[in-house]
Amino acid sequence: MKLKVQPIRIKTGKYKIVLNSEDAKELGVRGGDRVQLKNHRYLTAIVETGDMIDIGTVGVYQECCEKLGKECPLTLELIPTSKPSSVSYIKKIMDREKLTQEEVFQIVQDIVRDTLTDIEMTAFVTSTYIHGLSADEIEWLTKAMIDTGEKIEFETHPIMDKHSIGGVPGNKISLLVVPIVAANGLLIPKTSSRAITGAAGTADLMEVLAPVEFTADEIKSITEKVGGIIAWGGATNIAPADDKLIHAEYPLSIDPHCQLLASIMAKKGAVGADSVVIDIPVGQGTKVPTIQEGKKLARELIELGERLGMNVECAMTYGASPVGRTIGPIIEVREALKVLETMEGPNSLIEKSTALAGILLEMGGVAIKGRGKELAMETLRSGKALSKLREIIEAQGGNPDVTYKDLIPGKHKGEISSPADGYVIEFDNKRIVEIARLAGAPIDKGAGVWINRKKGELVRKGEPLITIYSEKDWKLNNALKSAQKDNPIIVEGMLLERVKGLSVI
Amino acid sequence: MKLKVQPIRIKTGKYKIVLNSEDAKELGVRGGDRVQLKNHRYLTAIVETGDMIDIGTVGVYQECCEKLGKECPLTLELIPTSKPSSVSYIKKIMDREKLTQEEVFQIVQDIVRDTLTDIEMTAFVTSTYIHGLSADEIEWLTKAMIDTGEKIEFETHPIMDKHSIGGVPGNKISLLVVPIVAANGLLIPKTSSRAITGAAGTADLMEVLAPVEFTADEIKSITEKVGGIIAWGGATNIAPADDKLIHAEYPLSIDPHCQLLASIMAKKGAVGADSVVIDIPVGQGTKVPTIQEGKKLARELIELGERLGMNVECAMTYGASPVGRTIGPIIEVREALKVLETMEGPNSLIEKSTALAGILLEMGGVAIKGRGKELAMETLRSGKALSKLREIIEAQGGNPDVTYKDLIPGKHKGEISSPADGYVIEFDNKRIVEIARLAGAPIDKGAGVWINRKKGELVRKGEPLITIYSEKDWKLNNALKSAQKDNPIIVEGMLLERVKGLSVI
Repeated sequence: MKLKVQPIRIKTGKYKIVLNSEDAKELGVRGGDRVQLKNHRYLTAIVETGDMIDIGTVGVYQECCEKLGKECPLTLELIPTSKPSSVSYIKKIMDREKLTQEEVFQIVQDIVRDTLTDIEMTAFVTSTYIHGLSADEIEWLTKAMIDTGEKIEFETHPIMDKHSIGGVPGNKISLLVVPIVAANGLLIPKTSSRAITGAAGTADLMEVLAPVEFTADEIKSITEKVGGIIAWGGATNIAPADDKLIHAEYPLSIDPHCQLLASIMAKKGAVGADSVVIDIPVGQGTKVPTIQEGKKLARELIELGERLGMNVECAMTYGASPVGRTIGPIIEVREALKVLETMEGPNSLIEKSTALAGILLEMGGVAIKGRGKELAMETLRSGKALSKLREIIEAQGGNPDVTYKDLIPGKHKGEISSPADGYVIEFDNKRIVEIARLAGAPIDKGAGVWINRKKGELVRKGEPLITIYSEKDWKLNNALKSAQKDNPIIVEGMLLERVKGLSVI
Repeated sequence: MKLKVQPIRIKTGKYKIVLNSEDAKELGVRGGDRVQLKNHRYLTAIVETGDMIDIGTVGVYQECCEKLGKECPLTLELIPTSKPSSVSYIKKIMDREKLTQEEVFQIVQDIVRDTLTDIEMTAFVTSTYIHGLSADEIEWLTKAMIDTGEKIEFETHPIMDKHSIGGVPGNKISLLVVPIVAANGLLIPKTSSRAITGAAGTADLMEVLAPVEFTADEIKSITEKVGGIIAWGGATNIAPADDKLIHAEYPLSIDPHCQLLASIMAKKGAVGADSVVIDIPVGQGTKVPTIQEGKKLARELIELGERLGMNVECAMTYGASPVGRTIGPIIEVREALKVLETMEGPNSLIEKSTALAGILLEMGGVAIKGRGKELAMETLRSGKALSKLREIIEAQGGNPDVTYKDLIPGKHKGEISSPADGYVIEFDNKRIVEIARLAGAPIDKGAGVWINRKKGELVRKGEPLITIYSEKDWKLNNALKSAQKDNPIIVEGMLLERVKGLSVI
C-alpha cells in the first residue's frame, strides 16, 4: 500500500508510524503490528492507528523520518511484516517454557534496539517478575546485556569494582571506597547510577564534585591515569538494556529478581571487573528484609560471578538505618569529605566504607587476609585516600582543592522538633527519602535532610529530630508540611501518648 | 510548575501530556507518572518525556486539549499526583494476592476510562494470563464489565442469547439460529464481533445483508419489534472493557482464560439475557483442543451464569473442520441464505444450527424437552426462519428481498488443485483462514475461500481442493502464492509420495 507521507515531529523512542484506521484495515494490520517500509529494507516500523491521520496518508514519527534520510520521502509503500521473533520468546516465558541462549540474546538485542513496543516489553518484565528465570537463563541474560553494549578492556589487571544493592538512604560510601582502593594501587572504574526513587545516587553525589558523564574510552583512560573514577553509567553505552527495562519496571514499581542479578553483574562484566564486592543492606525498608534472603541473594550473585569468570564477595550490612546523618547530594558529599579530611564523622559511614574497601584490598592481593580493613582505615587516616579522591576529581574535570566547608546546602531550612522527651524508637527510611525528594533532591543538589537523631538516640522535647534543606522556599514548605503530617521519626514518649489517647501529633 | 502550552494535534487514546526531560526532573516525575492540571481538578494526565518539547513548555495531546475546553489554555500549572489505585491492585495480582470486589471494579473502571497506560494494562493482562483469577474475582470482573457499560433492560422475558467460543472457520450459524429462535416468538438480541484474526466474524457476515451498527436503545427496539437482531457489539457501549483489553492482548496473542469467561458472560448479562447457549467447538486448531478441556470450560461458564442469575447451557461441537464449505463474508452468507431458501447446503451447517437453536427453543419453553431440534428443523424447512431473517434484515435497514443468488463473490478467482488421487487426510484450519485473509477477508466482503474437498473426502488428481475469491488481483496473487507454498490441505497420495521421497509438492 502506497501512502502520502506526513512527517510528525515528535520523538516516541521507537520507529513508529501512524495510519488511519481504514487504511490499517485495508492493509490488514492493527496497532502494535509491524510494517516494512519498501525500498528501506532495513527499516521495520511499529503501527499505530488514529483518526487524526487522513486516509491515504502515513504519519511518520521523528525517529523514522531521521532514519529515512535527510528529507522524509513524499510517499512510502508499506508491507505488513511479522513481529520480531523475540515476541514469541517472551510468550514462552509467560507459558513458563525455558529459553535457549540465542532466544535470550534476541530479546535483549530487540530491547536495546527499541524494536519492542511498551506492551511487549511489559509482558517481558511482568512474566520474568512472576516466573523468574533459571540460572542458565540469568547467565545468558547477563552475557546478552554485556554483549549488546560497549565493553572496556584493560591491559593491566586486576580490575576491582563495588556495588550496593540499594534501598538504604545516605549510602555515600563509594566516595570513600573508590579512593581507598585506588590509593593502594588497584584499578577501580566505578560506574554508578542516579537516583530514580531515592534522594541521591552515587552519580548524583559525585556530580557535586566533578562532571560524571564520560564515554567508555574516557572511563578507561581516567582509570588508567589515576586508578579510579566515579562515573554515571547512564551516560555510557555500557549494558544499555537495563535503562530500557526500567522504562517498563518503574511505572509498576517492580524490579524482577533475575534482572536485578543480571543488571548488577552485566555492568561489572562490561568494565572488565575481575573482583567485585557487593554490599547487601539488610533490614526493614531495604530491598532485602531478612538475613536469610540476604544470604540467598549473596549465593546467587557469587554463583553468577563464577559463571562469568568474576570473583564476587558479598557483605551483608545493617540497612535499617541511614548511613551517616545526611541525605541529599551536597550534604552527603560534605559529610563524606569531612571524614576524608578530618576523620571526624559518623561511625556508621567510616566503619562501612573501610570494611568494604578492606574486602577489595584483600581480593586485589594488596592486603593479607584479615588485614584489609586495617589497611583501609590506615589509608583513610593517613590522608592518602583524600589525595587520591582529589586526583580523581581533577581527572574528571572538577576542582581538586574543594574542602567540605565549601559545600553549602540550600539556604532554605526548617526543622521538625521532638514533641516529647524520649528515645527514637521508630525511624522510617522511606519517609525520610520522600521528604528529601519533596525538598528538591536529587535534582536540586542543595536539598536534603540532616538527621539530628537516629534510632535509639535520646532527644529532649523541642530539640530537632531532622533539619530539612532546600534551594526553594516552596519546596521547603511542601517537605515540611509532609513531614509534619506524617512524621518519619517516632519518639518513645510520642507513642505512649498515642496509646493513651491523650495527644497526637 | 507553570508551563506554556503547546497543543499537539494527535490522538493517543489517553489523557497525555509531554514534558521536556529537564522539566520532568524538576517536577520530580518520569514517563508514566501522573500530573494534575491545576484549575482542572477533574483532569489527571499521563506524563511522557521527550526532547522535542522546549524547556518551559508542556505538549498537550488532543484528548487533553478537548477536555480543557474549546481552546487550549495558554499556560497550565502541573502538580505531580499519585498513580490510580488500580495500579497497586494490579501489582497484587502479580504477587498472587486476592482482590476485593471493590478493587476489581476499580481496575475495570480505570480501563474503561482510559486512565491506565499500556504498561499498566499489559501488567494486568499478563498477570491474569499467568495466575488466573478466582471464581469470585471472575464473577466481580464480569459484573464490573457489565456495570461500566450500557445495559439493556427488556420489559418482556425470557431473553435468549447465543455465543460461539470461536476458533472454527466458517461458523456462520448465527444467521440461522437467530431467525429460527425469533420465528418461534422468543426475543434474541444478538451482539456479535468482527473478525480480529479470523476471516469473518458474525458482524462481518450480517453486514453483507444490512447495517450492523446500532445503539443499545436501537438494539432494544429492533428486538422488540421483530424478535431478533444481529448487531456489532463494538458499535455499542456494551461491556466496553473487553475491546480495551484486546488492545493489550492482541499484540501478545493471548486471551487470558478468566477474561474469556468474563467477556462472554458480560456481553450476555448486559443485554439482559436469561438463557444462553454457548457453542464450544472442540478439536485441533480450535481454542479448546480436547473434550476434557471443553467440559471444564462448560462447567465454568455454567457456574458463572448461576452466579449472575443466567441459565447457561453449553454444546460441545465438532471444531476440527470448518462449518460448511465457505470462508469469507459474502460466500458464507450466500451459503447460509441458500440453506434458508432451499434447504440445500452442507449438512454440518444445517445440523449445527438446528441443534443449537433447538436448545434455545427448549430453554425458552417453546419446545418440549428433547424436541427442540425437531422444531428448529421444522422452522427452517417451513420457510418461517427465512421470513424472520428478512424481517430482521429490513428492521436493520437492509434489503429484505435479497436472495442467495444476489451475493456474488469477488471476481478474481484461482484454484489450488490436487496433485494426486486420494483422500484428504490433513486439513489446516488456520492456514485456510490465513489464505482468506490474504485474499482480502474480512475487509473485502467478496474475498474468501471455497472448500471443494473437506477432510476424508475423495479427490482426483487435478481436481480443485480450494477455490480462492478476491476483489483485487494482487491480493489473489498473494493468497495463491501462499497456498502453493504451504498447502493447507494434504491428500493421502501426497503424503505417501513424501514418505517414499519420490516427489514433494
